[in-house]
Amino acid sequence: KPKKMAIIATKGTLDWAYPPLILASTGAALGWDVGIFFTFYGLNIIHKVKGKHLSVAPLGNPAAPIPVPNIIGAIPGMTAMATTVMKSMFKKHGVASIDELMSAAIESGVKLIPCAMTMEVFGYKDSDFLDEAEPSCGAAHFLSWASDADVSLFI
Amino acid sequence: KPKKMAIIATKGTLDWAYPPLILASTGAALGWDVGIFFTFYGLNIIHKVKGKHLSVAPLGNPAAPIPVPNIIGAIPGMTAMATTVMKSMFKKHGVASIDELMSAAIESGVKLIPCAMTMEVFGYKDSDFLDEAEPSCGAAHFLSWASDADVSLFI
Amino acid sequence: KPKKMAIIATKGTLDWAYPPLILASTGAALGWDVGIFFTFYGLNIIHKVKGKHLSVAPLGNPAAPIPVPNIIGAIPGMTAMATTVMKSMFKKHGVASIDELMSAAIESGVKLIPCAMTMEVFGYKDSDFLDEAEPSCGAAHFLSWASDADVSLFI
Repeated sequence: KPKKMAIIATKGTLDWAYPPLILASTGAALGWDVGIFFTFYGLNIIHKVKGKHLSVAPLGNPAAPIPVPNIIGAIPGMTAMATTVMKSMFKKHGVASIDELMSAAIESGVKLIPCAMTMEVFGYKDSDFLDEAEPSCGAAHFLSWASDADVSLFI
Repeated sequence: KPKKMAIIATKGTLDWAYPPLILASTGAALGWDVGIFFTFYGLNIIHKVKGKHLSVAPLGNPAAPIPVPNIIGAIPGMTAMATTVMKSMFKKHGVASIDELMSAAIESGVKLIPCAMTMEVFGYKDSDFLDEAEPSCGAAHFLSWASDADVSLFI
Repeated sequence: KPKKMAIIATKGTLDWAYPPLILASTGAALGWDVGIFFTFYGLNIIHKVKGKHLSVAPLGNPAAPIPVPNIIGAIPGMTAMATTVMKSMFKKHGVASIDELMSAAIESGVKLIPCAMTMEVFGYKDSDFLDEAEPSCGAAHFLSWASDADVSLFI
């Protein structure tokens, strides 16, 4: 029986889109059965339009590799600039883009599961998400699937 | 033997109060044994007074359903406005309020466990928390309980 | 066979450095086999220089014990002030400092594992990290180690 990993992806910024996709595709490459439950802001990651425009907050994170004073981070345009910087840092070092990581996850069989409840709250329809996503479902359904996971992560 | 879920709830904003309560009450509804260890900012969720006034940050989250420029989000009053917007979005779509989710969690037998160490740091007493909360305890006690959990989540 | 806990530490601010170190050293004190995979901003925690200067964001967290209006939190100098306040709150209540927690974790045998991929993206070398850290490795290596963990946490 293969190992199983259940990931709950709840954040929708560029920086927090990498971990679920990297961990999921790594697990799948190891032959594991992997499912990601996208909920709350995490729904953005599988959203056809929003998923192409994930960005990173330029303030409130003094641990950023290039920390920006919060007063500068608040200036309009800084979100776009921080996003560009992060994307180029990752690209420069040969890390796959979110698009490429998503393709790798899909190709390796990672299940992408949208949370029905938060979809409704945020006004999303099943058709807003990538065609490869599973039909949306509730937390009960996902937890039942996750109940025999070897690794469970809330991201 | 029922499935077991151990949740560590560390955040105390409105948006991050939903996931532990939704997941815990969903797990309990499935017949699972569920415990939530409230620590750090998460102590707010079971605080008799602060738990009634959880709010959401209007800046630093470009993944919010209605993203606000950070410079606008910094204006006084925007935290209250973002909180009102989020509450009404959830209510409009039939999602239970934090109060209702907390009642559901308690009724279904979810254990609410305050972290003794961070309570002391933040100046809280056992009597500051909901009457249904367990006596506060340390991380060692909670980890021992969690050591045979089927699903473990740090929220 | 001892219990096993796999922690992924992804945040590098002062407040989010406590949980992995507290949980890891608590688990190790219980006789568990514990490993922490430091990745993304979490690499700061084991960085020889940055680890001495972890700080906390003074804005965007309305759940902070002493909430500061975001417009005040954005003023230069407020990050340093919030950091000083948090350190003194923890010290006053007898909680070990990050340095002390790190020493306890190391002495009790917690494995400190830097993520090779994000190290490269952020421009860090193995020699930038504490001498007690393991050689850096990839997510596949860590997930393989974590695959039979009893408790897995993404922090």
